[in-house]
Amino acid sequence: MVKVGIIGATGYIGCELVRILLSHPQTEIKSLISHSRSDQPLCEVYPGFSGFGLPPLEPLSVESLFCDVVFTALPHGTSGEVIPALLNKGIKVIDMSADYRYDDADVYEVWYKAAHPYPALLSESVYGLPELHKERIRASSLVGNPGCYTTCSILALAPLLKHNLIEKGSIIIDAKSGSTGAGRSVTQSMQFCEVNENMKAYGIASHRHTSEIEQELSKLAGSPVVVSFTPHLLPVGRGILATCYARLAVKSSAQELYELYGDFYKDAPFVKVGGLPELKHVVGSNFCAMGLVFDSRTGRVIVVSCIDNLIKGAAGQAIQNMNLMFSLNETAGLKAPPWQI
Amino acid sequence: MVKVGIIGATGYIGCELVRILLSHPQTEIKSLISHSRSDQPLCEVYPGFSGFGLPPLEPLSVESLFCDVVFTALPHGTSGEVIPALLNKGIKVIDMSADYRYDDADVYEVWYKAAHPYPALLSESVYGLPELHKERIRASSLVGNPGCYTTCSILALAPLLKHNLIEKGSIIIDAKSGSTGAGRSVTQSMQFCEVNENMKAYGIASHRHTSEIEQELSKLAGSPVVVSFTPHLLPVGRGILATCYARLAVKSSAQELYELYGDFYKDAPFVKVGGLPELKHVVGSNFCAMGLVFDSRTGRVIVVSCIDNLIKGAAGQAIQNMNLMFSLNETAGLKAPPWQI
Amino acid sequence: MVKVGIIGATGYIGCELVRILLSHPQTEIKSLISHSRSDQPLCEVYPGFSGFGLPPLEPLSVESLFCDVVFTALPHGTSGEVIPALLNKGIKVIDMSADYRYDDADVYEVWYKAAHPYPALLSESVYGLPELHKERIRASSLVGNPGCYTTCSILALAPLLKHNLIEKGSIIIDAKSGSTGAGRSVTQSMQFCEVNENMKAYGIASHRHTSEIEQELSKLAGSPVVVSFTPHLLPVGRGILATCYARLAVKSSAQELYELYGDFYKDAPFVKVGGLPELKHVVGSNFCAMGLVFDSRTGRVIVVSCIDNLIKGAAGQAIQNMNLMFSLNETAGLKAPPWQI
Amino acid sequence: MVKVGIIGATGYIGCELVRILLSHPQTEIKSLISHSRSDQPLCEVYPGFSGFGLPPLEPLSVESLFCDVVFTALPHGTSGEVIPALLNKGIKVIDMSADYRYDDADVYEVWYKAAHPYPALLSESVYGLPELHKERIRASSLVGNPGCYTTCSILALAPLLKHNLIEKGSIIIDAKSGSTGAGRSVTQSMQFCEVNENMKAYGIASHRHTSEIEQELSKLAGSPVVVSFTPHLLPVGRGILATCYARLAVKSSAQELYELYGDFYKDAPFVKVGGLPELKHVVGSNFCAMGLVFDSRTGRVIVVSCIDNLIKGAAGQAIQNMNLMFSLNETAGLKAPPWQI
Repeated sequence: MVKVGIIGATGYIGCELVRILLSHPQTEIKSLISHSRSDQPLCEVYPGFSGFGLPPLEPLSVESLFCDVVFTALPHGTSGEVIPALLNKGIKVIDMSADYRYDDADVYEVWYKAAHPYPALLSESVYGLPELHKERIRASSLVGNPGCYTTCSILALAPLLKHNLIEKGSIIIDAKSGSTGAGRSVTQSMQFCEVNENMKAYGIASHRHTSEIEQELSKLAGSPVVVSFTPHLLPVGRGILATCYARLAVKSSAQELYELYGDFYKDAPFVKVGGLPELKHVVGSNFCAMGLVFDSRTGRVIVVSCIDNLIKGAAGQAIQNMNLMFSLNETAGLKAPPWQI
Repeated sequence: MVKVGIIGATGYIGCELVRILLSHPQTEIKSLISHSRSDQPLCEVYPGFSGFGLPPLEPLSVESLFCDVVFTALPHGTSGEVIPALLNKGIKVIDMSADYRYDDADVYEVWYKAAHPYPALLSESVYGLPELHKERIRASSLVGNPGCYTTCSILALAPLLKHNLIEKGSIIIDAKSGSTGAGRSVTQSMQFCEVNENMKAYGIASHRHTSEIEQELSKLAGSPVVVSFTPHLLPVGRGILATCYARLAVKSSAQELYELYGDFYKDAPFVKVGGLPELKHVVGSNFCAMGLVFDSRTGRVIVVSCIDNLIKGAAGQAIQNMNLMFSLNETAGLKAPPWQI
Repeated sequence: MVKVGIIGATGYIGCELVRILLSHPQTEIKSLISHSRSDQPLCEVYPGFSGFGLPPLEPLSVESLFCDVVFTALPHGTSGEVIPALLNKGIKVIDMSADYRYDDADVYEVWYKAAHPYPALLSESVYGLPELHKERIRASSLVGNPGCYTTCSILALAPLLKHNLIEKGSIIIDAKSGSTGAGRSVTQSMQFCEVNENMKAYGIASHRHTSEIEQELSKLAGSPVVVSFTPHLLPVGRGILATCYARLAVKSSAQELYELYGDFYKDAPFVKVGGLPELKHVVGSNFCAMGLVFDSRTGRVIVVSCIDNLIKGAAGQAIQNMNLMFSLNETAGLKAPPWQI
Repeated sequence: MVKVGIIGATGYIGCELVRILLSHPQTEIKSLISHSRSDQPLCEVYPGFSGFGLPPLEPLSVESLFCDVVFTALPHGTSGEVIPALLNKGIKVIDMSADYRYDDADVYEVWYKAAHPYPALLSESVYGLPELHKERIRASSLVGNPGCYTTCSILALAPLLKHNLIEKGSIIIDAKSGSTGAGRSVTQSMQFCEVNENMKAYGIASHRHTSEIEQELSKLAGSPVVVSFTPHLLPVGRGILATCYARLAVKSSAQELYELYGDFYKDAPFVKVGGLPELKHVVGSNFCAMGLVFDSRTGRVIVVSCIDNLIKGAAGQAIQNMNLMFSLNETAGLKAPPWQI
């Protein structure tokens, strides 16, 4: 059994990690760390966990953590000395923040407007998108778990860039996310009456996930890719739908593109290439579902992709990474179908 | 492995049976029967099931069903000769309709305004509420799986009636259900724009589940119990919350009542007695959560209970019954915590 | 033109007062008072008001208020010296808090756990439910505008108590409210992800509106009435639905009761007695819609009533009161039909 | 008073026309025509209209229609001989279908896959977008009221094309609509449980509104414009948000563009140019709100626009057109601010 710790257990990602791990056949939840609620059991925050025999919430003490892996679910920039200390103890780390998603500390600094908390570790950390970096993840002790929008967007566009099929300057990603993406912290803009029966765009031309998407797409393309990325807030709990537009640089057809996608993802157990997806086709599961249309009038391919932002966009992907890092079956604990209704 | 068939696989209950059974360690989904869609795979109706290796939808043919148990999810009154034929083949049956929930065909006839389709079987069928009838379910070949409202209501009130603590004529059950309770059939009143941002009461003083609740509460009390039951439609997908009112016939306190409830349900793995429950404390799980308040001003106890109407109120409870009928662990396949977010 | 001021203009009730008054043919919005946002125009908080020529938000200064009437939308207990000062200037006051809803300061003290801020005024203030106290409201300078739950509940039960038709101890009010009822202040429990796809009961046997309901029902009955009142939070923006139960003390029928209700409300332009109401039948309007069922099995009458909590439950009712206090047509500015879709 | 008739009064657009016209100071609702429900009052379908003194639903008889204007809210292609007959009687017509939105019957035929029902009238009908064609609408007897997506999209892009600021081939419109846009007819895909907590794209590269957008943008540009248009279904009742992308062909800045937009719409009482809009900033009103961002990294301008699909996208715009056709104030009956909460 892999012994697991979670730092930041009371947030939505922490909750979702616990929920999934409770059904994982090869893990044991050993430590739940919370700064703010360390005097309470987790079921004070999430009553549905009562009766599941979870360990109590504790304050952080690296010395007294006896785990094989720790998921760090802290705000970016705040894991400071914690992650190096964990690694020094021989504990593998899967970091849910943005800190270890970048190859280049300068890019991080530009988009997060702060110096990177520990740039020396960037050379050993791996970007935790198994569909692109499976072998490196297997060998790694520190994984930067990708953002939710970025997972959905990169997977939708990766085959096109890998095969050099599109005009690189033509990419537009119009993404829509459920409200759990904003996390559990309390704000006016996330009150029920502000989100319900509403929709808005935000962070246009400036959302940080843009940089993560560009980094990975550029690596696939072998040259710099710049994208327009627009996130929107949806009045639903879970799910991201990304509508991605690009102009084809070569002659092709929907059928050829579908074959290409099918081939690209033939070894990816959580990517489904098929009809146009809806949130309900994936929410509750670790799947990314995608479909595409080729528009001969405009020469554009439109790819639509969906994930559950808390699962494939966060906790599920982190567990998929853990499975790879510990030589478990990649799908262990993640086989549940979507909820659908 | 228990070989399972589902008749009526494309409805919401069928979908939920499939979803849960896919994670059940000791069952195999052998046959999926659908009258209306027998030319399609189930993932045409529920795309989230693509890739799960499910058998194709087929028309019903009892002869070619090779299962240990069949879940019949057909409208009440329509299973006609099917269930006797299955039983004759030695296949155990868990019926999701109202047909086998009654001890007395006359009560059925009054509330369903039709003769019972097969009254002879009522003497061998068992009301499938494991918290009340566990031993009889274990020994049975035909279980009438309880209604959703009824499960939530009976569990909330059972300890009070069993211990003769309340005025029997004082019971009022004000219940609120999510929209999946109405099933998948298409109606004007269930269109999104009719349900969204709306709420209504319906079936006041005439809803059929009243009779089921009264049958079970009367057995617990040892004398006839008549209740006021009012269902309401909520603009959510899943979940039932029942607010139950009764006047105490004896002197008591919240603490004494909590002890009584805790004791009554001490062997019930899916009943949680605790603080006042919310839908999110149970949705996604097979739990029934309940809490209570004693109001000294009015002499009433108010019990609030919650379930997921598709799980503890239908598919999950049916699988709990199956587990008992096949001597599996009562909680097999049903251990998932609620989704919560 | 009646010159209007609003103290507490940025809350949901303030917003709704402004929205309705903008269509009122005989009023002019003269002053918008806000403690917290007095440096901004109201359209910073509610962008939909941009372009409507509203006065700027100002800090409170009674001296510089030149209005005929002021709506005070402050938390209970905080209007302290403000209301007497306004009255002294000859300004009529419609108070949206609980402070002037009570005949007896002791009752207020018991339920609000604080001394009344200005008990001397209770003898001149009038409970602002026009269906019960129209003439006194016309003659008054200080109206305590009723609570939202209370308006919906009292109107549903008033005819039964006035005519002494029910067992007084048998009343149960099971009420469900949309989330705007909680106001605009920011809390964890009102975050979108906590309310969406959820439902809960709260304040069982202790909600303050109980005392207001009991005060008015007791006056109608001519003797003390004690009720069980349970509020619930619905995942919708607006609307209250109250399901009210009482046991008839006399022989009657649904038809007789409908006639009684029709007669009782024959001069009430905003009460509709008819079929069972749904939220969508009233939301967006100042109407209270109600219907009833007589259950001969239990001897109970079940009355269901609906209002828009922000309109008939707050701002609309306040404007109805204003119309009466200034001898305008009772329905001026309030004729809009519900939104319905 | 302008005497008004509505053909197709029971659909959502019919309901919304009635709701708004009930507050219009210069109109009288004279005739409500319904094929399917001509034996009932409208309040059987929409109970919130009870008590408003509306005329009964009747079957269509052009001879017995005595109106100044008729709103025809029928499915496209079905108004056949009705509209010519109305015009022959001297009744002005505002058609809510697609039939009279096109300059060229061939374009209609390509996108609607059917011959135009009455091509001879296309030369006299006017496209009813007052912000572009106010003078022609004033002079017209037959207005083709624009589509909902098209209103929101054209208004967002018109200034850019009029001033030739963008690469014409670079336009992408990613639009999201509430569910009332699908109308009141009953379908599986619009059941509550299918739409709630879901989102999907549909009609990619093939939605009919594309042709309407291209017609109007091409006229503005003075040369053919082809766009990528993707509609999405949102789990809300009302509102459209369009996120529009285009690459600037000239050097500019957000400030210059804002000035250009402000100037373009200086005489448009229902267009608000300002910060990035949200659905709640417009729903319930006839406004179109828009804001923009210039992204120097990609050279693109992103314009976000919002309308209420049933008001500015249908009934409100039709009434705005009526006001112009009858020389009333353009804003008569349409001054209500958005609901906002």
